[in-house]
Amino acid sequence: MTTTSDSQNPHPDTPYLVVDSTLLDANLSAMSARADHLGLDLRPHAKTHKSIDIARRQVAAGAVGLTVATIGEAEVFAAAGFDDLFIAYPLWLSPNKVRRLHALASATRLRVGADSIPGVEQLAQALTGTGAEVLVEVDSGQHRTGTSPEEVVAVARSAIAMGLDVAGVFTFPGHGYGPGLRAQAADDEGAALADATRRLTEHGMAPRVISGGSTPTVAAADAGVLTEIRPGVYPFNDAQQVELGTCDLADVALVAVGTVVHRTEHTAVLDTGSKILGADRPSWATGHGRLPDHPAARIVALSEHHATVDFSTERAPDLGARVRVAPNHVCTAVNLVDDLVVVRDGSAVARWPVSARGRN
Amino acid sequence: MTTTSDSQNPHPDTPYLVVDSTLLDANLSAMSARADHLGLDLRPHAKTHKSIDIARRQVAAGAVGLTVATIGEAEVFAAAGFDDLFIAYPLWLSPNKVRRLHALASATRLRVGADSIPGVEQLAQALTGTGAEVLVEVDSGQHRTGTSPEEVVAVARSAIAMGLDVAGVFTFPGHGYGPGLRAQAADDEGAALADATRRLTEHGMAPRVISGGSTPTVAAADAGVLTEIRPGVYPFNDAQQVELGTCDLADVALVAVGTVVHRTEHTAVLDTGSKILGADRPSWATGHGRLPDHPAARIVALSEHHATVDFSTERAPDLGARVRVAPNHVCTAVNLVDDLVVVRDGSAVARWPVSARGRN
Repeated sequence: MTTTSDSQNPHPDTPYLVVDSTLLDANLSAMSARADHLGLDLRPHAKTHKSIDIARRQVAAGAVGLTVATIGEAEVFAAAGFDDLFIAYPLWLSPNKVRRLHALASATRLRVGADSIPGVEQLAQALTGTGAEVLVEVDSGQHRTGTSPEEVVAVARSAIAMGLDVAGVFTFPGHGYGPGLRAQAADDEGAALADATRRLTEHGMAPRVISGGSTPTVAAADAGVLTEIRPGVYPFNDAQQVELGTCDLADVALVAVGTVVHRTEHTAVLDTGSKILGADRPSWATGHGRLPDHPAARIVALSEHHATVDFSTERAPDLGARVRVAPNHVCTAVNLVDDLVVVRDGSAVARWPVSARGRN
Repeated sequence: MTTTSDSQNPHPDTPYLVVDSTLLDANLSAMSARADHLGLDLRPHAKTHKSIDIARRQVAAGAVGLTVATIGEAEVFAAAGFDDLFIAYPLWLSPNKVRRLHALASATRLRVGADSIPGVEQLAQALTGTGAEVLVEVDSGQHRTGTSPEEVVAVARSAIAMGLDVAGVFTFPGHGYGPGLRAQAADDEGAALADATRRLTEHGMAPRVISGGSTPTVAAADAGVLTEIRPGVYPFNDAQQVELGTCDLADVALVAVGTVVHRTEHTAVLDTGSKILGADRPSWATGHGRLPDHPAARIVALSEHHATVDFSTERAPDLGARVRVAPNHVCTAVNLVDDLVVVRDGSAVARWPVSARGRN
């Protein structure tokens, strides 16, 4: 059910999340054009939206397939008919996950990540003989998961020895999530993937797929090295992307709508707390989210059901006024709701279920 | 359905949230004993667990009723048969919320919060003639919502003039959430409530209900002033409470269970990211959660599907090892899952649905 009986109600009870489908489509088109211009495959990360409706639009706009973070997300999208999925995560498989991954590989074209020889041994139990592909994760500077470029050969060789098809390498340049760090992170990404590619090629395992990219770094992606980009946030954008300089407030396609429940002259408390916005707040963020209609305002405190907004020199909105808030990190906000209200030209036109909500 | 067919599986796929029912029962008993000792009614905040099963145990242990944060939570608990609910929030009512609140007041004994005259006007539309009670919220120092003690008389008088039954006052001493601040916040709470009570009494509106209390401040609650306490977190506890000194790591009854997916000698990456732990991190927290079995370890970085743990001088657990993590803030972690795995003496015995998940 993608449209419910109250889809025509333009004012659901607050707080709720709303997507402007005109802005969404513009963001999808812009990223597809960027990937085309770079000559790279676009494989968007569906963890951002967890929505079958949005994933269909991404594929219609030219995406070659989807990226997901978990087996649970892959199961939801495979059941909805998506037939080319990449689980960009160094999975460790319990016996039950061996069964689940094997079933997935039988149902859809599947790629999975790996960054260690013991991890590859697990994957072989589930995937050998299924046609599924493995991408070795390389650390390009975030220092979270991934092998060093030196270790990539050993992991790839071990996977091949166990009967797996190593299609190539991937990285996530997450260290680009900081002011002024995007260009350097994109450079690091290109350098690490180039180094890994050279080493694999020297050992007769030349990669077919060289996958990178994040929403902040994709503009600077090294099209001479990569074959594929995997941005996630770009359909919606969020306050983090605004403050990183990736987009403007006017490009934010998803906001929480809240109500002023308490006010003084220059402050207001909204009912958009951390249970609708998410609690993400990187050290460099100027607050707990941004208000597209009040660019100078800052959310100075956030609890579960209260966002305290300092409107600076502006008069705070009246009690009962509805206020739009861009979450800091849209991926965690979307995972808090069962559906998204969709508006076009100011009118609610649909509800899109967050089909993979909680499949983390 | 409180027990599913896989309730006997002691090792669900990670990450998941698990409750130790022996520790839970001990925490429930300890708080009931504390309330008894203080001679105060216990009205626990159900936003923490959103669970009908746990709320039933709280009532069985002596709670007089439940506190909730939203109309949506109240609807879930009223439908499950709970007949004494307090929505501790200064509601602003849309026309649809007027209808919802009126229906609630017809179905259950109901109290609601108010902190402004316009807010009271809204409540009167829904509640006049229903027997529902209003508690005026007083700001005791958190400076989030609530009136000053001076304004409480005007708000109460306006409510009575509109035909509402003003039962008393409440506050939330949220400024006690910081190291070393608990005792002062409890003092502030008692002073603000005493001041508001004196003013209301002088104006012939002596409160029957004087409600305060939070998990960190309840030990220092002023039993000479309060009639009721509303702690939320105490059934589970969490890393924040440990670091505030409210409890020990051994008292934490709910943890996320994760798997080591990447490791070096002294660090490990777990699959317990912000989509299972929540992203709450107050400035004074030592990390993004704590590991009950590794007290010296700290979660130094957290993304949606990765928790990077520094084990200090200890050797990190092996790849594939299962690790228990106490979230920083259990209320936002529970809201991320559809059910809680329940263990007793190390065996899974049930699944408890998070029935009000997302009703924010």
